[in-house]
Amino acid sequence: MALGEFDLIKRYFAPLAEASSDASVALGVGDDCAILNCPEGHQLVVSIDSLVEGTHFLQDTPADQLASRLFGAAVSDLAAMGAKPAWITLALTLPQANELWLERFSQKLGQLCLQYGISLIGGDTTKGPLSLTAQVHGFVPVGKALKRSGAQKGDLICVSGRLGDSRGGLEGLLNGFPDSRGVEYLSERFFAPSPRVELGLALTDKASAAIDISDGLLSDLSHILKASGAADEPLGARLQLEALPLSEELVSCFGEDQARQWALSGGEDFELCFTLPAEHLPTLHNLPEAIAVIGKITDDADIRLYDRGQECALSGAGYDHFKNPG
Amino acid sequence: MALGEFDLIKRYFAPLAEASSDASVALGVGDDCAILNCPEGHQLVVSIDSLVEGTHFLQDTPADQLASRLFGAAVSDLAAMGAKPAWITLALTLPQANELWLERFSQKLGQLCLQYGISLIGGDTTKGPLSLTAQVHGFVPVGKALKRSGAQKGDLICVSGRLGDSRGGLEGLLNGFPDSRGVEYLSERFFAPSPRVELGLALTDKASAAIDISDGLLSDLSHILKASGAADEPLGARLQLEALPLSEELVSCFGEDQARQWALSGGEDFELCFTLPAEHLPTLHNLPEAIAVIGKITDDADIRLYDRGQECALSGAGYDHFKNPG
Repeated sequence: MALGEFDLIKRYFAPLAEASSDASVALGVGDDCAILNCPEGHQLVVSIDSLVEGTHFLQDTPADQLASRLFGAAVSDLAAMGAKPAWITLALTLPQANELWLERFSQKLGQLCLQYGISLIGGDTTKGPLSLTAQVHGFVPVGKALKRSGAQKGDLICVSGRLGDSRGGLEGLLNGFPDSRGVEYLSERFFAPSPRVELGLALTDKASAAIDISDGLLSDLSHILKASGAADEPLGARLQLEALPLSEELVSCFGEDQARQWALSGGEDFELCFTLPAEHLPTLHNLPEAIAVIGKITDDADIRLYDRGQECALSGAGYDHFKNPG
Repeated sequence: MALGEFDLIKRYFAPLAEASSDASVALGVGDDCAILNCPEGHQLVVSIDSLVEGTHFLQDTPADQLASRLFGAAVSDLAAMGAKPAWITLALTLPQANELWLERFSQKLGQLCLQYGISLIGGDTTKGPLSLTAQVHGFVPVGKALKRSGAQKGDLICVSGRLGDSRGGLEGLLNGFPDSRGVEYLSERFFAPSPRVELGLALTDKASAAIDISDGLLSDLSHILKASGAADEPLGARLQLEALPLSEELVSCFGEDQARQWALSGGEDFELCFTLPAEHLPTLHNLPEAIAVIGKITDDADIRLYDRGQECALSGAGYDHFKNPG
């Protein structure tokens, strides 16, 4: 690289690390390792995620959008555990040290770190095909993490926010938006997901299981069912299609049927899907995000979809509205 | 990928994670985050490193050699802090899910994890140009980490093991080994560096500063000088070339002069370079690795090289044996 690794870190990332006056960081960027203080009475939770050009994003995606997606996807995993975010490390592989790119990337990352109370504590920069890896670190009081396991028959199935928007944003960006009303909102939901950290914290001691919606509701819910059920006592779910929270923008652009399909299987919404013993529902006051009750855990060993009481066939990653189940 | 991400993790990496019965891991691979217990009275130290095809290794490098290099380079950063290794996370970007590759990689990684007492606690697998990122985590008693800062005028400069071998191994692999005696040993030093974890632990409370030799002795030593000195009180070093520890294999293959050049600037030896108040030298008994005293910290603001008392000119990343300094 024209700009050496040391210069690059010094110019773009060290100031960002120094901007935080986080007492938990005894030593940040600049030594062989960062040195960190873990709060007593807490467990550390960590998750690592990569974004790769050509797989997760198109060439020439603006650097600030990459920073938002990387950060959002990674921090969303902390939200799904009910964890308080603490630190982030970054491994950047770049074809060249493009200063404008680095400035836009580091500026957006810095904004997000400030917003979510996260300190950049270390990283590695290497030359090669563009890819970005982030590890996020957070804390939960001992034994209080929300896991995928823990859901029980009869628990309500809930989701935050509105589903399918990220997939709609991607569709519009690739093939054009049929309706201009959705352009800004849906693009933003694709590029800049909002990890539901505050909601995750509010669900501690309430939710029986939680996951963030990264692969699509059906796929992520099935992870909860698998982790919560046992071989001899499998769990299933009954979902009410009419209860899926959809944005006006998504419906006006792509129609209700398509919107529902994407809400079920679109992925990358980075909303939370969680299960809740019914008696806890009235205790959820003043949540930082809207939530919707979309179904119930069953002992069916399957996910079944209903539209106003009428069962729909589940086909592949979506459902067929007009066919009766076989 | 032919093999889905979930199957891939389940088949190759989950068993590896489960193999460890590490009580510090409350929940390993398989949820949104790993859940971890940090030991009381300790600080967490972390480092993230990437290896990228075409930049750090050639196409078709065997998977077990990649596992060794990735692991060695990453854990070496823990050694340089005097930390006890604990956990590793892994972000793998693979062009395809080659089962033989995955088996060789995960098997070698598993061996190394077992050897160094490290648990695999999480990861991400994505499709794209081959690159491997690892984050390592370790612990030091509060305030006991070895840093790059802390060296003082008069401190001895020491290194572990023998230097230049990794560069010699690379040279031989690229252009052939002039002498068959070095083939096995030097290739191994390139592909499978041995992080000096036990030595790092033994240097706690003794060494005034430490770094691992990844960029080359001169470059890494200059990091110590920079971190330890101040703008108005810069530090320098005086190195005795004849004291540089060289392997017989390296000298027999490439000659003493070339061996010294590589010892100074070859990089990727992953030995430790550390500074030591002279009074501590006699207290270093039964070290797990051989160490050599190669020089002394000065207030010169420069690194000066001497060969049997005669100063040599330092040119670029090496030195010129026959020229007197200007």
